[in-house]
Amino acid sequence: MHSEDIKLLMKQASGKSVISFAGGMPNNDLFPVKQIDDIYNSLPEDIKKLCFQYGPTSGYPPLIKSLQSYLEKKGLPVQDNKILITTGSLQAISIITQEFINEGDIVLTENPCFVGALSVFETFGAEIHSIPIDKDGIDIKALKRKITSLDRTPKFLYVTPNYHNPAGIIYTPERKKELLEVLSGTGIILLEDDAYSDLYFNEDEKYLTKPMKSFGIQGVDIIYTGSFSKILGPGFRLGYMLSSPEIFEKAETIKQALDACTSNFMQILGNEFLAQHKLESYLKFLRSEYLERKNLLQQSLEKYMPNTVTWNEPKGGFYIWLKLPSHIKSTDIFKESVTNGVVFVTGRTFDPASIKDDRLRLSFSNMPKDSIEKGVIILAKAVKKVLKNAKVKSS
Amino acid sequence: MHSEDIKLLMKQASGKSVISFAGGMPNNDLFPVKQIDDIYNSLPEDIKKLCFQYGPTSGYPPLIKSLQSYLEKKGLPVQDNKILITTGSLQAISIITQEFINEGDIVLTENPCFVGALSVFETFGAEIHSIPIDKDGIDIKALKRKITSLDRTPKFLYVTPNYHNPAGIIYTPERKKELLEVLSGTGIILLEDDAYSDLYFNEDEKYLTKPMKSFGIQGVDIIYTGSFSKILGPGFRLGYMLSSPEIFEKAETIKQALDACTSNFMQILGNEFLAQHKLESYLKFLRSEYLERKNLLQQSLEKYMPNTVTWNEPKGGFYIWLKLPSHIKSTDIFKESVTNGVVFVTGRTFDPASIKDDRLRLSFSNMPKDSIEKGVIILAKAVKKVLKNAKVKSS
Repeated sequence: MHSEDIKLLMKQASGKSVISFAGGMPNNDLFPVKQIDDIYNSLPEDIKKLCFQYGPTSGYPPLIKSLQSYLEKKGLPVQDNKILITTGSLQAISIITQEFINEGDIVLTENPCFVGALSVFETFGAEIHSIPIDKDGIDIKALKRKITSLDRTPKFLYVTPNYHNPAGIIYTPERKKELLEVLSGTGIILLEDDAYSDLYFNEDEKYLTKPMKSFGIQGVDIIYTGSFSKILGPGFRLGYMLSSPEIFEKAETIKQALDACTSNFMQILGNEFLAQHKLESYLKFLRSEYLERKNLLQQSLEKYMPNTVTWNEPKGGFYIWLKLPSHIKSTDIFKESVTNGVVFVTGRTFDPASIKDDRLRLSFSNMPKDSIEKGVIILAKAVKKVLKNAKVKSS
Repeated sequence: MHSEDIKLLMKQASGKSVISFAGGMPNNDLFPVKQIDDIYNSLPEDIKKLCFQYGPTSGYPPLIKSLQSYLEKKGLPVQDNKILITTGSLQAISIITQEFINEGDIVLTENPCFVGALSVFETFGAEIHSIPIDKDGIDIKALKRKITSLDRTPKFLYVTPNYHNPAGIIYTPERKKELLEVLSGTGIILLEDDAYSDLYFNEDEKYLTKPMKSFGIQGVDIIYTGSFSKILGPGFRLGYMLSSPEIFEKAETIKQALDACTSNFMQILGNEFLAQHKLESYLKFLRSEYLERKNLLQQSLEKYMPNTVTWNEPKGGFYIWLKLPSHIKSTDIFKESVTNGVVFVTGRTFDPASIKDDRLRLSFSNMPKDSIEKGVIILAKAVKKVLKNAKVKSS
């Protein structure tokens, strides 16, 4: 994870009174500890022994089976594709990057973009070109222009369409369709990262999370990645990718050379969580918890933030993405708020070029509910102070 | 792990009566299941919650501390170096390869060599040059000749000096010293993979396992890797590397791009296993179990194998490395024995060039004791049949 997040997490854990809107991880108090206790303590002896043993590189077969039925319910074409279990979905992104990217090859991303993925692309020497997103998804015209303007075909486009990190938005079904139509026939692979889709706030809007890989549009190779980090716990390091058998085959070889196989122990617990149908009730609990946190944050922002600060209310996920007046920078607000005990992640962190800084990401997933209003009050003061200073300077 | 091993493991698990000398993994019945049960069920609530959460990329701090004291007892220079926790020690090898190797760079290995490492070096495009080993370690003259003959400096030399996989030998202290003297000043990094050193059979010979990184010889950069796979269970995917701060720093960045961090869940259980001093008594148990298995295999080989088949009796670890008369191939023996229900790993598997095939690896770690004699009888018959056929052909 982001080293900044870690330091903050540590600081929090050590009891210092920082209010953190920074961490893009679940709250420690929300994990299904009791359920995993029950699962662990009722594992048959022979399965428990398997926890300690190597497993196949592609994954623990019963988990693959459980995932097939989980993904089939999302409409995904499980039968024509193959599942590779990975050590977190970041490993899936890493494997795909190693499979397709040589130094200097082009990767397209959204702007803003999940910073973990950016760091993978950078580490493996990709040339990153980013395309802006709006409240409905990636900017289609900008994407077309970008593709036309490049002298080489990008290897893939990386997107997080459902409850975007950091932007908090969800692509409309129309935008998803348009995106697929643009990519169709170009040879650009679509890497669809779907870590948050189970975390919708409203059952009526679940349909919005439908993965693009389930749309059945021809002429686009789609690699779909998912994660247990948001629906069980990041500490399990359990993720997966669903791809064509051809892409799977090379990915499995790379996975073999990265860590041989993902922990059987974690795979077995993860499998039982799915197979014993503990996920659905746990998700219901999570959704109501995160909705409550989102509402608290939304209400506090409405109450305390200056009118010139705007945002889109998220329909799910972990994040609210504030838009500042264009003449002030989130980095300046950070410097001000951190001294008063409130942190968040600055906008430019999510810009591949590390420039665009008129946004800031507030995560409502990883904090006690009763800190939210207090945190927003401090943050709003910091915003007002930076606004005032900017005014003084310009006058 | 090796896909061949997996298939065999699966076949065994499904109850088919294959006797396997193939799997280089512990026996399911030897895992410390009870100890981990006790640890898990007595974790304080706040630590249990941490199991589910992200951790720092470099590793769970209490585990790093426990490892420091564990490695200090081996004489390793823990204070001047840094520990990176990895998802199995294969990930450490993978990270080091990604840190130092560009397509076409030279890696030196032993011949025979651990096949998992070979597959990493191949996947990342290294040019592999191998140096023979004898019963006392790597052939020093051959190593010198190789280094002189190359037009480029190899990036590193990869060795498994303690209870070699597959050769079963342990380097003598003299050979370890000679190796360091040859490398000193050449700029060739030594990658010392030490997965088996706790598994000596005789307390009096423990001193032989002293790591080269503890020798204090100047002018050689040594990266030391270790694993929990043989002392706790491969299913934990827990390993580590000990290196200079400079090498650590880049390795941590690569680790971040591979899987963000190793499972906190597995790290916390692994840490408690060390911190609660459960390792020492468990190792005593393991050593006596493996010694008993080694003795059974040794006795059966003496009783049933033709005199022309030879081997060095191992002083620890998992393997006996049979030497066949040079005119027959282990692949032919495999074809014969597998039809009669006995498998092992052929010699050429461990030759980077996949040619040298006058050896075969028998693992005594992963089988019921009462199968050993039965397995050797079938194997000896296969050897005799292949010998006889070779005689007929040549006459």
